[in-house]
Amino acid sequence: MHRYRSHTCGELRAADVGTDVRLSGWLHNRRDLGGILFIDLRDHYGLVQLVARPGTPANEALGHLTKETVVRIDGKVVSRGADNVNPDLPTGEIEIEVAEVEVLGAAEQIPFTINAEDGVNEERRLEYRFLDLRRERMHRNIMLRTAVIRAMREKMTALGFNELATPILSATSPEGARDFLVPSRLHAGRFYALPQAPQQFKQLLMIAGFDRYFQIAPCFRDEDARADRSPGEFYQLDVEMSFVEQEDVFQVIEKVMTELFEEFGGGRHVTSPFPRIPFREAMLKYGSDKPDLRAKLELADVSDVFAGSEFKAFAGKHVRALPVPAVQDQPRKFFDGLGDFAVEQGAKGLAWIRVGEGGALSGPIAKFLTEDDVKALTERLGLEAGHAVFFGAGDFDEVSKIMGAVRVEAAKRAGQFEENVFRFCWIVDFPMFEKNEDTGQIEFSHNPFSMPQGGLEALQTMDPLDILAWQYDIVCNGVELSSGAIRNHEPDVMYKAFEIAGYSNEDVEREFGGMLRAFKFGAPPHGGIAPGVDRIVMLLADEPNIRETIAFPLNGNAQDLLMGAPSEVDDARLKELHLSIYKGAAKPTPYKPTK
Amino acid sequence: MHRYRSHTCGELRAADVGTDVRLSGWLHNRRDLGGILFIDLRDHYGLVQLVARPGTPANEALGHLTKETVVRIDGKVVSRGADNVNPDLPTGEIEIEVAEVEVLGAAEQIPFTINAEDGVNEERRLEYRFLDLRRERMHRNIMLRTAVIRAMREKMTALGFNELATPILSATSPEGARDFLVPSRLHAGRFYALPQAPQQFKQLLMIAGFDRYFQIAPCFRDEDARADRSPGEFYQLDVEMSFVEQEDVFQVIEKVMTELFEEFGGGRHVTSPFPRIPFREAMLKYGSDKPDLRAKLELADVSDVFAGSEFKAFAGKHVRALPVPAVQDQPRKFFDGLGDFAVEQGAKGLAWIRVGEGGALSGPIAKFLTEDDVKALTERLGLEAGHAVFFGAGDFDEVSKIMGAVRVEAAKRAGQFEENVFRFCWIVDFPMFEKNEDTGQIEFSHNPFSMPQGGLEALQTMDPLDILAWQYDIVCNGVELSSGAIRNHEPDVMYKAFEIAGYSNEDVEREFGGMLRAFKFGAPPHGGIAPGVDRIVMLLADEPNIRETIAFPLNGNAQDLLMGAPSEVDDARLKELHLSIYKGAAKPTPYKPTK
Repeated sequence: MHRYRSHTCGELRAADVGTDVRLSGWLHNRRDLGGILFIDLRDHYGLVQLVARPGTPANEALGHLTKETVVRIDGKVVSRGADNVNPDLPTGEIEIEVAEVEVLGAAEQIPFTINAEDGVNEERRLEYRFLDLRRERMHRNIMLRTAVIRAMREKMTALGFNELATPILSATSPEGARDFLVPSRLHAGRFYALPQAPQQFKQLLMIAGFDRYFQIAPCFRDEDARADRSPGEFYQLDVEMSFVEQEDVFQVIEKVMTELFEEFGGGRHVTSPFPRIPFREAMLKYGSDKPDLRAKLELADVSDVFAGSEFKAFAGKHVRALPVPAVQDQPRKFFDGLGDFAVEQGAKGLAWIRVGEGGALSGPIAKFLTEDDVKALTERLGLEAGHAVFFGAGDFDEVSKIMGAVRVEAAKRAGQFEENVFRFCWIVDFPMFEKNEDTGQIEFSHNPFSMPQGGLEALQTMDPLDILAWQYDIVCNGVELSSGAIRNHEPDVMYKAFEIAGYSNEDVEREFGGMLRAFKFGAPPHGGIAPGVDRIVMLLADEPNIRETIAFPLNGNAQDLLMGAPSEVDDARLKELHLSIYKGAAKPTPYKPTK
Repeated sequence: MHRYRSHTCGELRAADVGTDVRLSGWLHNRRDLGGILFIDLRDHYGLVQLVARPGTPANEALGHLTKETVVRIDGKVVSRGADNVNPDLPTGEIEIEVAEVEVLGAAEQIPFTINAEDGVNEERRLEYRFLDLRRERMHRNIMLRTAVIRAMREKMTALGFNELATPILSATSPEGARDFLVPSRLHAGRFYALPQAPQQFKQLLMIAGFDRYFQIAPCFRDEDARADRSPGEFYQLDVEMSFVEQEDVFQVIEKVMTELFEEFGGGRHVTSPFPRIPFREAMLKYGSDKPDLRAKLELADVSDVFAGSEFKAFAGKHVRALPVPAVQDQPRKFFDGLGDFAVEQGAKGLAWIRVGEGGALSGPIAKFLTEDDVKALTERLGLEAGHAVFFGAGDFDEVSKIMGAVRVEAAKRAGQFEENVFRFCWIVDFPMFEKNEDTGQIEFSHNPFSMPQGGLEALQTMDPLDILAWQYDIVCNGVELSSGAIRNHEPDVMYKAFEIAGYSNEDVEREFGGMLRAFKFGAPPHGGIAPGVDRIVMLLADEPNIRETIAFPLNGNAQDLLMGAPSEVDDARLKELHLSIYKGAAKPTPYKPTK
């Protein structure tokens, strides 16, 4: 028999009754019923019940062990009998009559409960992460993450993509977020950087001819933590394809995401194909370029209705309306509550009307509307009895932000919000350029390296503010999973695009010379995307905090409380790296060392 | 039709003749035969021949393009005719009559040849890696690497292992090689480290109960480059298992390695099961703990034969003999050549004898051997007519090193060396402790965290120098792929082992407190290994330099010549990281910036 186990703790069934078995695992739980010990033994694969009768050596041995002790037991599989079957446990029909016990790993008193969720704080959990990971929820989340990433790899491979690793010790990038730097020992005063993303390398792989690349890519940004972003490192499903247009990228990602979310979403349904929503339309209809399409309400621009209105609060402003059907039974509290919500979002208040039987209007601003206004709104919004309309007025961005939030909240409160679905969409047609309101300068709206729609001709002939980019976002349930783009692979187009944004050719060559050089030796048209793995796992696991889906995350203060990082290093190491600590104005952050 | 291609350049066959196709790719080669242009168009998938007849617009368009221009062409598949079939090319039965040409990516003059290997130096290749990767050999190596890693993942998964990512921003380790450090912005004067290996994290995963872990793990060591080690980062197939003994680890790894090397070894055979060779025996028989078992010769310890000899060169020394059969037809040059080789390895010379017909001895030291010596050697080494014996004498380690090298070289020169095989072995039974000859102190031989064979009892009762460890190496064709061990998971055993090596309990707790703490809360017996991915790919690709198997390696001087890393950063960045450059004795290394 194997030194440690003949079976795992999850695999014994009624058919195994009578078998002599050896099991190893953790002492999960113990009950003493009139001297008979019932013990749940736990391993990675499951739980199994052990029984030790009074007066046996096994009873003696198991009686005094602390929870979480690792033991090896020998015993015989016996039936629990019909009355004692535990239908919630795959091994629930049997138990093990223990004959022999060996302690493999002793356990001191555990600092928090493993076999039930308790209210222990997160810092403590991270400090003892090796215990926290034994708890069912964390174990399930980490295994889900593993399965999701494995499935990503399998699906991408099946679609003809090759996983290629790009360097982690790399060069600083001139823009974007803050890099982590790594001092060089061999090259005094010089630094590597950890990649914010393998963007340049994956484009170089396309230029090198690899055609379809992906990577579960570690990325690093020295940014402050958020609920959906770990400080330090995160992973993305990094994808790039040659000889493609935007729709080719969409086809691949839609297939992979639909399959992943159907497979691992716990029964939540995915609607496919994903709608393509132009950026401008998304801002108008949803007040956001990350619309949560589970909310079944849409905004409408009614600025023109009030353009010449006597109603000063709306006249000449950007006015957005949110019609909500079937509110005839909603109490006044519904309207006031949404008003309070709007104020929390930064609004001064929330104007509204409701349509009664026969079309009679009521509500705070009903009296300000002319007959023409009502007619226009009724037509535009398809108003009927039982409808309400909420209004926001102000400048475009502010109104979008507030009414976008009101839209989702109103949908939830009015029963117009779908549960148990993943509603994906593509946001497309982002503007290439925008005007800086302060300086009057034309600037890149988003990514300067995206291909403008219409190429060089568009840049030469169109008003820059009308030019759209082959750039897109993928959004699921209001969460942006990634931006992507068809890249600008033509040096002439790149020079021209930067010229419009106020850069000379020399500027471009100085800042982006490496990539530009590569584009001059035969670059294929290419594009890609990089959905965030952590966010996908969060959505699938239905966890609100990204750290619940990572085995060993840094805490919100970018510390590893388990291993004690970051930590001080001795002077000799610093000298070897040609560094000294700068004792400037910055004060050392208080640091809680690992006990 | 798709904007860029209806087919790839590798897939058209005779059955496609008559089809209108659209292809995109790189202009690989062009020949002009009496005005007819024959062009090889290349993409990731293969090559296809284009034809452009004189006087056509296609001929006009293609005639002036530089090599490596990216084009899209429309045309018709035609048969080459039996006489012109190229049997070396999968598309060799057809060619494409070009009707229309579009340049997708212009190319300047390429700095070295893509369509043939030329003698361009490595620095230039790395500077233009995006072009170098277009060359057939590099493309094949990178795709091999991708396929090997994919297969590793599939095989480990099929064996019940789960891939779990461990942190890259982590804590410095107190021992081993030099870490790369990452300064913290939030915590002044403190540093993260990049992991030399996920050793502690994978053990913590076992303690957390994950049972069978693997990871294609990025590892980082700030060490100088070698042919088989990249400076900076490298990858290992990191493996750890709970509730196992040494043989369990061997079963898994043997299966995975045998399958991998059979599948990707280009027809080279793998001998399985792998022999288990105790460390001491390996040193005696092969002069090395990394024996190349393709060499079919073995060393023998004959020190006792010469213990009381009159022959001063051997008497009282450690003497190792290398019998070589069937050398009757070898000229004197064979013997002298091996002597020269031994001198290159650091020997003063190489003693030898040869056995003639009827047992007559000849050779430089024949006259020093007594009848008893000859009798003993003949028996011990099974000497027969046609045999030769080479001798080394001195101290054990020195003789092992020299005669180990002579063994392999002699085998090659005497036709006793197998080609086209992968000979794996396990080296086992490493000593736990050794005596430092300078200080007389007992020290750990290798890994202090391996479990001693016999556990606590062995530590308490045996001579430390006789204690063996559950530690092992896997070796293939003389290349060490990894060390591994059954870990010491018991705090009591760890305290005792360190006590023998001169550490107090307080020392152990100060240096290794994090892991020790984890072991105190119920640790399972566990062990693992971490075969080097880069070395495996080198062996499979039959490449002598590790950089030929990595898409974007640092050069031997730890520089990225393509992206320009490491590079200087501005003072503001340094201040933000609480650092200043230490202007000490170290002078900046001359640095060649990327053009």
